[in-house]
Amino acid sequence: MSFRAHLESVVNQVDGALACSVMGFDGISVETYQKEDAAELELGGAWVEYANLLTQLKNAAEVLKTGTVTELSVNSDKVLTLIRMVSPEYFLILALRAEGNYGKGRYVLRVTAPKVRAEL
Amino acid sequence: MSFRAHLESVVNQVDGALACSVMGFDGISVETYQKEDAAELELGGAWVEYANLLTQLKNAAEVLKTGTVTELSVNSDKVLTLIRMVSPEYFLILALRAEGNYGKGRYVLRVTAPKVRAEL
Repeated sequence: MSFRAHLESVVNQVDGALACSVMGFDGISVETYQKEDAAELELGGAWVEYANLLTQLKNAAEVLKTGTVTELSVNSDKVLTLIRMVSPEYFLILALRAEGNYGKGRYVLRVTAPKVRAEL
Repeated sequence: MSFRAHLESVVNQVDGALACSVMGFDGISVETYQKEDAAELELGGAWVEYANLLTQLKNAAEVLKTGTVTELSVNSDKVLTLIRMVSPEYFLILALRAEGNYGKGRYVLRVTAPKVRAEL
């Protein structure tokens, strides 16, 4: 299964999903699957910002006594964004409409991350 | 109802909750309620780091086309952390054990934020 097939599967399984991507911590997307009706949302700028936050969290891991970060979520009134670590270099990022199925999104990213890792 | 009573109510309503705090974006806690059995976890260092991330997200709001951030979550294998904006200066932060009720935590923070805001 290609990266793209995994991303498409995530978007199709989760109600309200807009787009899913495999990204590096440098903010560069390896592969993205975006629904056509999500094209009006400029997600890219936000995603680069979130990648930057994630890098800071990784670097702060020794200071944080709460363990290595495995999941990050940044939500606004319009868009919910879920991030799941895949490897020390890559993560999965999923954008949902605010009324989308957040719990299902978390679950699907959790089970998809090891499948994507196996192909890196 | 005092700040502390609101925070205690949040912790008591959510299975697996460890501690809840009203914090400023400067990383200084206004009031905290922590369960006794959570004392072994040094949450403070992580919380200051998260306050810092939140400030960056606020400052980046104009760049992000995805709307103002209302909610942030940073999860590790050990601790789930939920953050909910209260006002432009303050936010609520809740730490849960990894097996805690995440969905209930999100809900309780959402309904508690306006009550806390009314007392600021």
